[in-house]
Amino acid sequence: MPEELQMKFKDDTKGKTIVLKLGGSVITNKKKLMVPKLKVINRLAKEIADANIEQLIVVHGGGGFGHPWAKQYKIKEGYKYPSQVEWFTRIHQAMLELNKLVVDALIRNNIAAFSVSPSSCIITKAGRIQVFYDSAIVRLLEIGFVPVLFGDAVVDNELGFTILSGDQLVTALSAKFNASRVIFGVDVDGLFTADPKTSKRAQLIRNITLPELKALIQSIEQAKATDVTGGMFGKIFELMVAIDVPIKTIIVNATKEGNIYKALREERVIGTVIEKE
Amino acid sequence: MPEELQMKFKDDTKGKTIVLKLGGSVITNKKKLMVPKLKVINRLAKEIADANIEQLIVVHGGGGFGHPWAKQYKIKEGYKYPSQVEWFTRIHQAMLELNKLVVDALIRNNIAAFSVSPSSCIITKAGRIQVFYDSAIVRLLEIGFVPVLFGDAVVDNELGFTILSGDQLVTALSAKFNASRVIFGVDVDGLFTADPKTSKRAQLIRNITLPELKALIQSIEQAKATDVTGGMFGKIFELMVAIDVPIKTIIVNATKEGNIYKALREERVIGTVIEKE
Repeated sequence: MPEELQMKFKDDTKGKTIVLKLGGSVITNKKKLMVPKLKVINRLAKEIADANIEQLIVVHGGGGFGHPWAKQYKIKEGYKYPSQVEWFTRIHQAMLELNKLVVDALIRNNIAAFSVSPSSCIITKAGRIQVFYDSAIVRLLEIGFVPVLFGDAVVDNELGFTILSGDQLVTALSAKFNASRVIFGVDVDGLFTADPKTSKRAQLIRNITLPELKALIQSIEQAKATDVTGGMFGKIFELMVAIDVPIKTIIVNATKEGNIYKALREERVIGTVIEKE
Repeated sequence: MPEELQMKFKDDTKGKTIVLKLGGSVITNKKKLMVPKLKVINRLAKEIADANIEQLIVVHGGGGFGHPWAKQYKIKEGYKYPSQVEWFTRIHQAMLELNKLVVDALIRNNIAAFSVSPSSCIITKAGRIQVFYDSAIVRLLEIGFVPVLFGDAVVDNELGFTILSGDQLVTALSAKFNASRVIFGVDVDGLFTADPKTSKRAQLIRNITLPELKALIQSIEQAKATDVTGGMFGKIFELMVAIDVPIKTIIVNATKEGNIYKALREERVIGTVIEKE
């Protein structure tokens, strides 16, 4: 019974919130169906607890809990044939299972985490967030909770349904809450000049501005098809969507111990820092 | 892979929806912590599938997944002391676990069930629903899904947090969607002139009007303290709140095989029918 959990009634949730994304490939085995990385999840929960952030929103991806079915049944493209229907709802069920592991780990580490289902409060139109009812998240932050959201199977006003990526969610939340910082925890060290998994000449980009990012995007556009939610391309695309919201963003390798803690504490850490200009 | 699941784009969700409540004491062992009645859940899912209702919303209670902690930590009364915080979020987690069992059973029976978290789209004020973002539910109904909600731990604009009963949720949904019928599946045969569990003289009320119900409520008000969400008293209270919405309501015993099927099909069934006048 951790008495440490506090209920802090706050007067303002704007401008103070850090949005932390935990990549699906960090917390799950992305190549297998529904295999969570429990040790990693628990380590990350401990790093988040140790960082002791006053106002935090956590978003996680799906990895092996969402991507394989989303890809196989083309859920992102919307309703096309009857058998998709079952998999649309099964993806949400699977994401809730993964979310439960993340939230339970946070609670065990004395964080007042609270699960929020994106599909219960968001509707997209042609895959982009059209309506986002955030009052419950605002109230959760006000009373001292850490809302935990996830990439989800959501209803869509044009397509019937689709997949909402955790990355799009991060960008929307960052803009809505005028986040002070956004941290993307991924399974590589940051943005590279080429794909570090296939090219030896790939160099880590330590700092980049959004205009520079725009130029870079063309050189890596071919990576677009490798991931139902866009992978690193998707992340960069979402960052560009957020171009008008000058939020300091850092991409770090969350598979390496201590990086999420350091990023949350604004300590020196290997990664890519993206700033407006 | 049931190809039977259909995606039916609909033009209107109003006036056609049946709202079905499955009581917590029907689908769980209310006296034990987190013990679901899996056979009952599966039987009910089959009855719902067999009834083949075009537009349906399912709401379930918490029973042993919500009540014991809600009662022990006084969550319904709102924030009073720090250790409540952990249990507020743990109740939501437990309710998600029970909800998963219900939704999975419905999916297995070829129903396009989709889980909706009340705490992600509802805020209460002093325990009563103040904001209810229902667009995702509307869209789910439009495209042919069966939204499945549950009594939940929710944020409250006055109390910090509280418990939203499945019964209050049923009344709110019935009014919002101008439901054609409301069915309460409970663990007794309906409303009685006295408590059938303790009094031999208790007689089942087969038909009752809301004005008559108002009179009855005073005679059973002493039962108020026996259930954190109000038990049968709570149900009657919610029905009275809905007094201006003339929705035909039936209370049936869902522990008895076939009753939910019959109630959904509007067949003759033992129970209490409540009408406006």
